[in-house]
Amino acid sequence: MPTTAQDSEQQEPRVEGRAARKRRAILDAAREVFLAHGYLGASMDEVATRATASKVTVYKHFSDKQTLFTAVVTSAIEEAEHSSRSLVDHLAESTDVAGDLRTFARQHVTTVTQPHLIRMRRMIISEANRFPELARAWHRRGPERAHARLAHQIELLADRGLLQVDDPLLAAQHLNYLILSVPVNEAMFTGRDTPYGQRRLHRYADEAIRVFMAAYGAS
Amino acid sequence: MPTTAQDSEQQEPRVEGRAARKRRAILDAAREVFLAHGYLGASMDEVATRATASKVTVYKHFSDKQTLFTAVVTSAIEEAEHSSRSLVDHLAESTDVAGDLRTFARQHVTTVTQPHLIRMRRMIISEANRFPELARAWHRRGPERAHARLAHQIELLADRGLLQVDDPLLAAQHLNYLILSVPVNEAMFTGRDTPYGQRRLHRYADEAIRVFMAAYGAS
Repeated sequence: MPTTAQDSEQQEPRVEGRAARKRRAILDAAREVFLAHGYLGASMDEVATRATASKVTVYKHFSDKQTLFTAVVTSAIEEAEHSSRSLVDHLAESTDVAGDLRTFARQHVTTVTQPHLIRMRRMIISEANRFPELARAWHRRGPERAHARLAHQIELLADRGLLQVDDPLLAAQHLNYLILSVPVNEAMFTGRDTPYGQRRLHRYADEAIRVFMAAYGAS
Repeated sequence: MPTTAQDSEQQEPRVEGRAARKRRAILDAAREVFLAHGYLGASMDEVATRATASKVTVYKHFSDKQTLFTAVVTSAIEEAEHSSRSLVDHLAESTDVAGDLRTFARQHVTTVTQPHLIRMRRMIISEANRFPELARAWHRRGPERAHARLAHQIELLADRGLLQVDDPLLAAQHLNYLILSVPVNEAMFTGRDTPYGQRRLHRYADEAIRVFMAAYGAS
């Protein structure tokens, strides 16, 4: 999945042009190889072949398989976050909290249930015992960061008197899991990567916000 | 984990005495073997050895590995449900809905975050692509049945005017995931089987019920 030039600059200020494009090609190839064979089954050789790069080039960018995997995970999460980040970062200025949360929720559930993210989540969970540092990297870059970002906005909305919140982090976790739990758990256990259509996803999003506002809305 | 004689009679009305004990020993051995080696890595030979049974006996009780695995999953879920089933089944008669839901929630989160269930959940998710029927068996026996059972009680409470609910199944899913999502997701991704102590788990349970009652309580 291509990123814009701006993304790449933000993420890697010192890598430009040809090297940045090669790095991107290696990451794209690595994502396919990891999703196809799992962490253990993936080989740097296959990544190099698929990226039409030499092994030396692959190792120049990523010193070992774990570093490469962490970069793949980070990149997938950053792409996913990109689509909802501006929605989240403007929540605190909202004049229609329920409405803006619904817009965020619909975007968020659509993003997180994308097939490649569901498959990556499944793979990471399956390796969490053997490679706990991989799962922790996903958790830190994904849910933990998302919860912290949401908690900050929730706190600002509470300061403005638009929400009533004792524990902003727990409120953020409730919000996130109210939006995601039904479709993501279904996807984890059914083995189907996209169990729901858009109408169903939007309904889960809207009902999540109804519950959240009932519990945390200013009365 | 041993079950009581009554359990075994309920689950297997026609298998008694020595045969029932052997079946139980095979199931206990199989749980250990599956958790140690994963579904693919587990062998019927090792199960037989660990249960001090012949392979013929193992196959007499369970015709193949998948049947055995499904029985292990079903048995683990039935044990887990047993501890909260009477709490759930009496919810409809409650005269203190929030209090009784809190009691259920504390029991439920404590049960579901037991290490062997966390490890089994992780294993099932990891095999969901390759063996979708195993994951579906878990989902049907576990979350789907629990949601249906809760939805029924929620509907009866709504009939008595003690809850306000349009969609009892979605309300049950919200209740279940409000209680479980934070600790179970943490456990899935950290690779630690028991990330939280009892005080923390009870706090998640209590806050889940506060949110649920705010959204679904009769006003």
